[in-house]
Amino acid sequence: MTVPPITEKLLAAKKAAGLSFADLEAKVGCDEVWIASVFYRQASASVEEATKIIEALGADPSLIEVLTECPVKGGLDPVIPTDPLIYRFYEIMQVYGMPIKAVVHEKFGDGIMSAIDFTLDIEKEEDPKGDRVKVIMNGKFLPYKKW
Amino acid sequence: MTVPPITEKLLAAKKAAGLSFADLEAKVGCDEVWIASVFYRQASASVEEATKIIEALGADPSLIEVLTECPVKGGLDPVIPTDPLIYRFYEIMQVYGMPIKAVVHEKFGDGIMSAIDFTLDIEKEEDPKGDRVKVIMNGKFLPYKKW
Amino acid sequence: MTVPPITEKLLAAKKAAGLSFADLEAKVGCDEVWIASVFYRQASASVEEATKIIEALGADPSLIEVLTECPVKGGLDPVIPTDPLIYRFYEIMQVYGMPIKAVVHEKFGDGIMSAIDFTLDIEKEEDPKGDRVKVIMNGKFLPYKKW
Amino acid sequence: MTVPPITEKLLAAKKAAGLSFADLEAKVGCDEVWIASVFYRQASASVEEATKIIEALGADPSLIEVLTECPVKGGLDPVIPTDPLIYRFYEIMQVYGMPIKAVVHEKFGDGIMSAIDFTLDIEKEEDPKGDRVKVIMNGKFLPYKKW
Amino acid sequence: MTVPPITEKLLAAKKAAGLSFADLEAKVGCDEVWIASVFYRQASASVEEATKIIEALGADPSLIEVLTECPVKGGLDPVIPTDPLIYRFYEIMQVYGMPIKAVVHEKFGDGIMSAIDFTLDIEKEEDPKGDRVKVIMNGKFLPYKKW
Amino acid sequence: MTVPPITEKLLAAKKAAGLSFADLEAKVGCDEVWIASVFYRQASASVEEATKIIEALGADPSLIEVLTECPVKGGLDPVIPTDPLIYRFYEIMQVYGMPIKAVVHEKFGDGIMSAIDFTLDIEKEEDPKGDRVKVIMNGKFLPYKKW
Amino acid sequence: MTVPPITEKLLAAKKAAGLSFADLEAKVGCDEVWIASVFYRQASASVEEATKIIEALGADPSLIEVLTECPVKGGLDPVIPTDPLIYRFYEIMQVYGMPIKAVVHEKFGDGIMSAIDFTLDIEKEEDPKGDRVKVIMNGKFLPYKKW
Amino acid sequence: MTVPPITEKLLAAKKAAGLSFADLEAKVGCDEVWIASVFYRQASASVEEATKIIEALGADPSLIEVLTECPVKGGLDPVIPTDPLIYRFYEIMQVYGMPIKAVVHEKFGDGIMSAIDFTLDIEKEEDPKGDRVKVIMNGKFLPYKKW
Amino acid sequence: MTVPPITEKLLAAKKAAGLSFADLEAKVGCDEVWIASVFYRQASASVEEATKIIEALGADPSLIEVLTECPVKGGLDPVIPTDPLIYRFYEIMQVYGMPIKAVVHEKFGDGIMSAIDFTLDIEKEEDPKGDRVKVIMNGKFLPYKKW
Amino acid sequence: MTVPPITEKLLAAKKAAGLSFADLEAKVGCDEVWIASVFYRQASASVEEATKIIEALGADPSLIEVLTECPVKGGLDPVIPTDPLIYRFYEIMQVYGMPIKAVVHEKFGDGIMSAIDFTLDIEKEEDPKGDRVKVIMNGKFLPYKKW
Repeated sequence: MTVPPITEKLLAAKKAAGLSFADLEAKVGCDEVWIASVFYRQASASVEEATKIIEALGADPSLIEVLTECPVKGGLDPVIPTDPLIYRFYEIMQVYGMPIKAVVHEKFGDGIMSAIDFTLDIEKEEDPKGDRVKVIMNGKFLPYKKW
Repeated sequence: MTVPPITEKLLAAKKAAGLSFADLEAKVGCDEVWIASVFYRQASASVEEATKIIEALGADPSLIEVLTECPVKGGLDPVIPTDPLIYRFYEIMQVYGMPIKAVVHEKFGDGIMSAIDFTLDIEKEEDPKGDRVKVIMNGKFLPYKKW
Repeated sequence: MTVPPITEKLLAAKKAAGLSFADLEAKVGCDEVWIASVFYRQASASVEEATKIIEALGADPSLIEVLTECPVKGGLDPVIPTDPLIYRFYEIMQVYGMPIKAVVHEKFGDGIMSAIDFTLDIEKEEDPKGDRVKVIMNGKFLPYKKW
Repeated sequence: MTVPPITEKLLAAKKAAGLSFADLEAKVGCDEVWIASVFYRQASASVEEATKIIEALGADPSLIEVLTECPVKGGLDPVIPTDPLIYRFYEIMQVYGMPIKAVVHEKFGDGIMSAIDFTLDIEKEEDPKGDRVKVIMNGKFLPYKKW
Repeated sequence: MTVPPITEKLLAAKKAAGLSFADLEAKVGCDEVWIASVFYRQASASVEEATKIIEALGADPSLIEVLTECPVKGGLDPVIPTDPLIYRFYEIMQVYGMPIKAVVHEKFGDGIMSAIDFTLDIEKEEDPKGDRVKVIMNGKFLPYKKW
Repeated sequence: MTVPPITEKLLAAKKAAGLSFADLEAKVGCDEVWIASVFYRQASASVEEATKIIEALGADPSLIEVLTECPVKGGLDPVIPTDPLIYRFYEIMQVYGMPIKAVVHEKFGDGIMSAIDFTLDIEKEEDPKGDRVKVIMNGKFLPYKKW
Repeated sequence: MTVPPITEKLLAAKKAAGLSFADLEAKVGCDEVWIASVFYRQASASVEEATKIIEALGADPSLIEVLTECPVKGGLDPVIPTDPLIYRFYEIMQVYGMPIKAVVHEKFGDGIMSAIDFTLDIEKEEDPKGDRVKVIMNGKFLPYKKW
Repeated sequence: MTVPPITEKLLAAKKAAGLSFADLEAKVGCDEVWIASVFYRQASASVEEATKIIEALGADPSLIEVLTECPVKGGLDPVIPTDPLIYRFYEIMQVYGMPIKAVVHEKFGDGIMSAIDFTLDIEKEEDPKGDRVKVIMNGKFLPYKKW
Repeated sequence: MTVPPITEKLLAAKKAAGLSFADLEAKVGCDEVWIASVFYRQASASVEEATKIIEALGADPSLIEVLTECPVKGGLDPVIPTDPLIYRFYEIMQVYGMPIKAVVHEKFGDGIMSAIDFTLDIEKEEDPKGDRVKVIMNGKFLPYKKW
Repeated sequence: MTVPPITEKLLAAKKAAGLSFADLEAKVGCDEVWIASVFYRQASASVEEATKIIEALGADPSLIEVLTECPVKGGLDPVIPTDPLIYRFYEIMQVYGMPIKAVVHEKFGDGIMSAIDFTLDIEKEEDPKGDRVKVIMNGKFLPYKKW
């Protein structure tokens, strides 16, 4: 993913301000993952949200408007990402895709988990044998419409 | 994904027995998603686990041994899956891959979430505006070794 | 697309019965495109719907159950379909994708048109200069959730 | 899709003028989707049409000529688009491609829906359960010539 | 391209009858290339045309009906064909695609040459320096509709 | 296809001179399609031919030498072109590739139509039902050598 | 490359007869590589050549006719072959493709080496430091035609 | 293949000096194809070889060092090259790959022809029916090691 | 990777005999990885080696000859393997490919590590924090030949 | 792989300092392959490690911070690398992937070799018949978790 110029500016401002995404969550009142999505132009913000983010960063207010535009989303450069952290999600889909499909259909019927009416949280679970990453996806079930 | 013959046999036995994966979870003592992974030959079982699964299904005991073999994993037919339910996980990776990477590195340092020392749970969250699918991934953080 | 065996059986029964999809629409009370989707295993039917379809066709009742299972959807063989009729929809997406995106965002904000809470109708518009195909897609607008 | 420089200029002029595509439709007398296609260089305009568009935007008249040239069309960057809104049209083609083919052939015989002698409209259907996007495609049926 | 079973039957019948496609052209009253397209299930015939073809071949009349069905067209196995004769047409498109586009737009305006309202003839041009293959494509010009 | 800088210069000169490719054909004494191929750097010219083209355009004589160099040919950006006019040639190859192969082998034996010892003409066939594009390809038949 | 059934029969007959391709070259009077190409259905033989090959093998005479048919050529299964011996030719093209192009154009002008009016020989060059494989390709130079 | 800047400089110097690769072969004492490989950064030279090449060209001595670095090799832009001259080598591999494999294994046993301990020469064979390109590849046979 | 029938027979015989690859190494006197390569038809054996393997397995002696034939090697089904264990080697190449290249060139000059004159061993390194897999690759350095 | 600007700066500093990666290993106290990985932005360093590397190189201290950031890893430009040295690792995976899988599962059970808790060393093994490259990979075995 070639990061767009505005992302670089936001990351630089965040670094200069010495803030983590968790700090921004506290200041802006939105989840850190969603804020990171705004940084990477994968989500659009309202004027109020964008203003809060830019103010928290002490960044150039002219950036506010850009953050409110609907971005072209996605676009990891290779179709199958090569970064090991991101690839693991591809692997999870390859290995657990069909089992997930079977269980979701059994629990909910024919339909999908929305990736739009959707939230994603990342938690750190401390563990003496090695800390664990917890990713919680929460999407509305959308049943197939018949007509 | 062309399902292997043993998967078809297991699914048929499960249907004949009138059991859901949740029922199997109760009988076998393992998570329903993991059991579904065994069905689809994405996970291998111990002899004890395989025996419990086959007995719960009332299926042919000759299937036990196959379930204990280490399968060639993955293999959704198109590189980018076309089934809408499975595709959404590809989309989540495309849209939220970089934001997740940013937050995980910030919380944990350089490394990845393991997809091997890993569990995945699916919960149904009832909601008057439409039930929600909750997918909880939990993987050990593996820091990059330096040498 | 290699058509699954059940699709071949249904198409043969439909031919033997001398019925068009429009006739089935009249008999079953569902749209002809949706019924065709059931034939091609791209949509699942309820037991009642499946029974009506099978009875209208005079087909083997043992097929009813299969039609109620949640299918693995999609799967046109080449990633970019080569059949000219189907390809035109790929071309429409290539040529009009960005303009559609711009107009939808302007009218609705950031989000998508659901392909799940979605209907698709095909009408024949008679025209002395050559009849026209009218395809009406109707999908719920899903705004991106923020969290 | 990396948007060509002229598209960026037109979008900036439109923003500066505070006009929506619907406003342009009213001023220019052409459909908003078609006008958006001209913006994205997927359609060419006549001198008169281009002049009206440029005047409505209050943009640089030197842009008129460019809008009349026949563009190289298509070209979403990844072969399968990753933007969720645009991808849904790929998914619709994957899932409903064969059913559409079956119904069109039944209604019209062997041939295709033209994507050239073709219009596409987008309407907003208000709905208390959530507004709906209506996409109406209308293409001339072209029967296969025999010789 | 894996040739469908009916194509093999037709080719075998043609061989047994000792007929060339040119002979079939004379007997059936349609062009040899079009008849070959019917053999390869790339074109559908009317009942009358199919009957004439089958009778000329002395083939099984039960094949007539299949020839009247609208086939799924295209489908050379590799996306870029490896057979040298067929590949040359890919090469011609790669090398002369943009020049053809420039000349057609100059002569006709914005639009395309139809591949549906289209004929294709192959002639042998005798030449002492080596005979030449002449391929004549003739397609209706379709101007882009504006709306 | 990202057009090389020299192509842009030549097209600009042609526009400034108000010449069509057909006009250049008259002035240079070579076919308009071949001249367009020289413009797009898909064909190399002799010094005499390049000089005539540059003089007819009134362009910078320093461009002559570049036109005489053997270019790296081909290179439409996506492997399967998305421009609808160019794509139709891909579709023709997909749909008529095997029938052409069958007829050429029957008329000529095993071998190919050369795409090198090859000419391509485009004619406009006026027709009250809509003008037609005629593309005439003429390539030497090359029989496979045995050794 | 999935070898067609006739290739398997020919290879089995050759093994049963205890003949190498070099032995067949001596008996048939054609080069061993070309004969191997006939075995793999990459080249077609005349009736006389096919008869000699089949007789030399002591194989079933019914196979003669198949060998005279023009095959669909090429078709190594993965687009980039994985067999190390065959891959090296891909690597040679990747590494030496542009240098070869430069030298051929310098020696011959604009055009190509024919792969049709073409022979390929393989010789064993004995060398105390390790024997060497010598592959001699010999193709007619085809200059680009201008028109 | 986007040629690296140093290649452009070397080609320009060669042109300015009025030298062919064959002339360089005479002056430098290495084969013209290998020298062309050095130009295209597919081979590295020793300091002595690089010095001779640069001096023969009368080029900037600061280029010497670059020519001695081990380049990242290969990298024709499309995976299957579209330039017709280079493509023919892909076609030769597709068509003759399996026959070559069969003959090499028969003559040498299991192993490969090295593409590293390898030379490639291009000769012009004059022929009244059209000159011929002779490409002689010579690579050490490497038997598979067993362990 | 769809395993060939002979591989299945060998694996079944090995299971029936209750032997590990390490046991076979002890009986046959070749490395266990190389023996596994023979099982998967990625390496060919001499008659003596094949006989020892078949005898150790107590398998059908008619399999001996097949094991001596030079196989078509490679061929993991997806170009980028999806099995997690095998994928890690792809990831290692993606992440460490350039660093390895830099260090090998520095230590050895321009050339490659042979994958033919090559051995690969797998060792288990016991470790209280978790056992480790040690993969030792050993290939002859092949310097690029100049000519 | 297009090398990032910082890599070019580090390689230039290393050259100016006349240091090999082995020299850096001695000065920095980390393995040369790991240091090369830091150069190519495939590994992140701690502030201390980065400082040591920059000081050893005598490079600009402002580069220290960049080396501590978690990079987007991987990204060899073509999915299957064309550089012969790097490709051999792809070939090893294609040819030995399944045998490695079989032996690892036999020795360790179901799981993978970590590519994260992983080291890679390169040794030069002197050999009168030609020096050998020894690549030692050492990764923690990660057993699949069950839940």
